[in-house]
Amino acid sequence: MSVIYDRVALIGLGLIAGSMALAMRRAGLAGEIVGTARSAETRAIAAEIGLVDRVTETAAQAVAGADLVVLAVPVGAMGALAEEIAPHLAPGATVTDVGSVKRAVIDAVGPHIPQGVHFIPAHPLAGTEHSGPRSGFAELFDNRWCLLVPVDATDRVAVDRLRELWQKMGANVEQMDADHHDLVLAVTSHVPHLIAYTMVGVADDLRRVTDSEVIKYSAAGFRDFTRIAASDPTMWRDVFLTNKDATLDILGRFTEELFALQRAIRTGQGDMLFDYFTHTRAIRRGIIEAGQDTDAPDFGRARKLQ
Amino acid sequence: MSVIYDRVALIGLGLIAGSMALAMRRAGLAGEIVGTARSAETRAIAAEIGLVDRVTETAAQAVAGADLVVLAVPVGAMGALAEEIAPHLAPGATVTDVGSVKRAVIDAVGPHIPQGVHFIPAHPLAGTEHSGPRSGFAELFDNRWCLLVPVDATDRVAVDRLRELWQKMGANVEQMDADHHDLVLAVTSHVPHLIAYTMVGVADDLRRVTDSEVIKYSAAGFRDFTRIAASDPTMWRDVFLTNKDATLDILGRFTEELFALQRAIRTGQGDMLFDYFTHTRAIRRGIIEAGQDTDAPDFGRARKLQ
Repeated sequence: MSVIYDRVALIGLGLIAGSMALAMRRAGLAGEIVGTARSAETRAIAAEIGLVDRVTETAAQAVAGADLVVLAVPVGAMGALAEEIAPHLAPGATVTDVGSVKRAVIDAVGPHIPQGVHFIPAHPLAGTEHSGPRSGFAELFDNRWCLLVPVDATDRVAVDRLRELWQKMGANVEQMDADHHDLVLAVTSHVPHLIAYTMVGVADDLRRVTDSEVIKYSAAGFRDFTRIAASDPTMWRDVFLTNKDATLDILGRFTEELFALQRAIRTGQGDMLFDYFTHTRAIRRGIIEAGQDTDAPDFGRARKLQ
Repeated sequence: MSVIYDRVALIGLGLIAGSMALAMRRAGLAGEIVGTARSAETRAIAAEIGLVDRVTETAAQAVAGADLVVLAVPVGAMGALAEEIAPHLAPGATVTDVGSVKRAVIDAVGPHIPQGVHFIPAHPLAGTEHSGPRSGFAELFDNRWCLLVPVDATDRVAVDRLRELWQKMGANVEQMDADHHDLVLAVTSHVPHLIAYTMVGVADDLRRVTDSEVIKYSAAGFRDFTRIAASDPTMWRDVFLTNKDATLDILGRFTEELFALQRAIRTGQGDMLFDYFTHTRAIRRGIIEAGQDTDAPDFGRARKLQ
């Protein structure tokens, strides 16, 4: 148990902040954990389940005297939040965030950060389809990646301290440039989510196949899409609006490729399909070897439903 | 333990046939289970691990004296296989299959079935991304659906017997018309697989994002796509080529919908995106309530990697 920050302020008490509170407590990384959320109901639940040591009414109260402030709200709400807390930040404090888009957060938050406060954008690549103050768990970041995206002239000591926090919460930490981050995440996360949302929407909208059929027969592949498409709507609206360029760029590549496969189906090019599907199988093996998933079939579904 | 068929012949010893052998054995449903596969290696492995009671060199040998014959080969291979075994089928036997497409199988297999043999197409909606003789497990069909697609004038007693087999292997059984089956599966399985293959292909092809980045950061959503895109290439090539019309139909709906969301992103229509994502979340709840998935976050990934 080694305290890294004396007082951590978590603003927004959803899946990520809640998991951070539990992970910090697991390893004794914070002297005191203060939390707040815009919704009175969220604050009441957090207080009731003891998610943090102290719940405050406002973000300004939460950040007072904190040496680490974590902005854990939807990307679209970061700018106004930064403006609200700026006058109350302690000198020498670090402000970080957990948003899924980095360039937009830097543009929105950066200008409000006072002299003498360190701003270190971050993004833990972890999550589930659940949200809200009851959804967190201490193991969420174990063996997952957290990307730090320091802006120019960020204090090295402050970065190392935040890196240590994430490592002791279980994550592997890497640094990345903001624009590259946004492109990589468009590929590995943002466009896959948009596609899953779309496919679930199509299934629901198709009058010739009933909803109950879609639901009953979902185990054939569709089920995994619905899990992704159950993620928090506000968070994802903001992701697409704030990472617009990279999302549209990758979407363009995706439709181009989809049309090529569609054409192969229409014209009966079996060899092309076979080669394509063989190639994608190899990528799966890479992910298993990298420890980012298990080789258990179907995520162990069979075992869990017994 | 109640024997339903005295001798079952499994042709093709992959994930589905292997799981059937294990599920039949679990409940004592078959007097003898005979198996064969085109590949000598597959036959050798099946014999070595005792997957079936007896391995034969040829399909003709396997079906001799069998009262149930299961065609468990890729859809594109069904017609030639039916032609090969037809002269060797026992009078009164039932021939069934486990293909993911039904109209094409009926057209390819039906004409070869001799008088006095019952042909009852079927499709168990269960699977994993693994394949081959070692991939089966007895629980694969538990609480999953098996769709029977009897053709005109199929013997009712023969259908009831096959239904009982599937039920005692753990599945829920329902009957469906072939064309409706192919449309429902295009929505719940075939197009989702094609989309997942495409997305994984795009990620791999994108030179600005390295493969190691895609693999390292896959936990952000992409990982679920790679699981789907690791499925057997031969099987899926045949699915798309033989369920061409329904696949292209649903793909058309999908791209139409995707373009609408893409336009909402480009023009900044946050409300439209939020409403769309809220709606799809409800479908997920339906699937969990229907017992086709658990509510455990991220398929219990966190627990399994600890």
